[in-house]
Amino acid sequence: MGTDLGSWADGPARSAIVDFVERVTAAGGPDFVEPADRVAVFDNDGTLWCEKPMPVQLDFTVRRFAEMAAADPALQQKQPWKAAHEHDLHWLGAAMVKHYRGDDDDLKLLMGAVTEAFDSVTVENYDARVRAFFDGADHPTLGRPYRGCGYAPMVELLRYLEANGFANYIASGGDRDFMRPVAGRLYGVPPERIIGSALGLSYREGADATDLLYKAAMDFFDDGPEKPIRIWSRIGRRPILSVGNSNGDLPMLAFSGQPDRPALRMLILHDDADREFDYVAGAEEALDHARERDWTVVSMKHDWTNVFSSAVT
Amino acid sequence: MGTDLGSWADGPARSAIVDFVERVTAAGGPDFVEPADRVAVFDNDGTLWCEKPMPVQLDFTVRRFAEMAAADPALQQKQPWKAAHEHDLHWLGAAMVKHYRGDDDDLKLLMGAVTEAFDSVTVENYDARVRAFFDGADHPTLGRPYRGCGYAPMVELLRYLEANGFANYIASGGDRDFMRPVAGRLYGVPPERIIGSALGLSYREGADATDLLYKAAMDFFDDGPEKPIRIWSRIGRRPILSVGNSNGDLPMLAFSGQPDRPALRMLILHDDADREFDYVAGAEEALDHARERDWTVVSMKHDWTNVFSSAVT
Repeated sequence: MGTDLGSWADGPARSAIVDFVERVTAAGGPDFVEPADRVAVFDNDGTLWCEKPMPVQLDFTVRRFAEMAAADPALQQKQPWKAAHEHDLHWLGAAMVKHYRGDDDDLKLLMGAVTEAFDSVTVENYDARVRAFFDGADHPTLGRPYRGCGYAPMVELLRYLEANGFANYIASGGDRDFMRPVAGRLYGVPPERIIGSALGLSYREGADATDLLYKAAMDFFDDGPEKPIRIWSRIGRRPILSVGNSNGDLPMLAFSGQPDRPALRMLILHDDADREFDYVAGAEEALDHARERDWTVVSMKHDWTNVFSSAVT
Repeated sequence: MGTDLGSWADGPARSAIVDFVERVTAAGGPDFVEPADRVAVFDNDGTLWCEKPMPVQLDFTVRRFAEMAAADPALQQKQPWKAAHEHDLHWLGAAMVKHYRGDDDDLKLLMGAVTEAFDSVTVENYDARVRAFFDGADHPTLGRPYRGCGYAPMVELLRYLEANGFANYIASGGDRDFMRPVAGRLYGVPPERIIGSALGLSYREGADATDLLYKAAMDFFDDGPEKPIRIWSRIGRRPILSVGNSNGDLPMLAFSGQPDRPALRMLILHDDADREFDYVAGAEEALDHARERDWTVVSMKHDWTNVFSSAVT
């Protein structure tokens, strides 16, 4: 099929993609893969959309903290609700910086509160909250709505793969049900193809209605070795193409392809301070592995002629 | 779309199906449902294929016990390996009978052994074992291979729903990865649409290969209230059509449709000793609910002109 990878510069990354897709779709060729087995998996934060200065989901959850603090003055004195109530993003940023330095105390406080933020909310109510957030919320520094923060070259890649018989899944450390309501609009990926971290759910049956409610506890955190496990659980096939941007994506990339199929493994390198961000924190090991194993590193600066689409859906 | 429900007798069950499908596909009608939301879920054991005199998966696992006992004489003196080694199906049957009478000691022994039977086996090796089983194994009393024990009317229903834009999922208490290798062949349902119970998995990375290995412990048992939870986890939508045959299917059926969509809920009634089996054990509560709530009960004896297909795939 023809390519419309217009936001990809001519270069090694684009060539790696096109060469791989041509190999696995060449009927009768040595690397031909049946359409049903053309599974591609994508990390989300930092791979399909921008994850700086904080993950989009964290912004959503901080707004929830502020709402909780407004309703309960006692929370206004406790972190992380205090920071949210006072719009003090410094505390949140410092928690992340401390985390990278090995001090996880504040991050644990934050993650505990994240886990409890939607306790007993129904799946339908959560869906409506996420949709409302994306209708209105803007990225804090990029001057565009969050729903305009998906990477245009990656959306083109998703369409190109689909046109070549691939099924695209998102396998993210982010919350599965936070991505589902917006992934169709941003990426054309439907809810059943969203794999992500999950809160526990409980089932409640009333006289006239049944509900699923979130628990204040994680079911699992979809990162690192959990990614291939959750990919298998959901799909029942190994991917042949996988894209990530951090150390937590390494097992997903390593799991792709083998034992008997080819694979294309890619890492997005954030090296573009002008158009997006420039950072490698959390990706050092992944980049080392990529170099050792000849995986494809995509330089945002050099491989992408365009980072964000001018049209916002 | 035209119907080819040739194994369904004219009667209330067939009418309920056709009426429902016509309602939800009638563009502009009050019950129209977008194709993306036309999700149908099916229990497997006793709903899509025969579950008597024992679940197919149990036969598969008993053969594994026999293999384990042959390799380890100590196991030949311990249940349930002893029964498998001696081809003593009486012990297994008695364990089930005791279970229905409230004595779960032998069943617990059996289920513990089932959980451990594939400890440290890779997902690919398990897949190959399941395929080999279905290539050769016959049902103990029906005089046909297990792969010929799917219900012809249900396969027709799956095709009819597909032709009307539905996506069919299997939501079974049976092991997900036991169904996956054969569900395409029997039902035309691909691995990514199989929801079932799951053993825990662990990820192992070697120098040249990565593997997923089963643990000797369940991740979850997909029955009762767990069914709607796992359906949501996998699909992210409520089904609008659901079919089961036992008490463990009640929450799945109740979860379908609402809050704002129509639903068709069906129970298969095993009342056909001549062509299949006649039993209600384990389905009493479900049948009571169905009568109270006007759910559709499908009589195998009266609603199906044909139970099994003469052609075995």
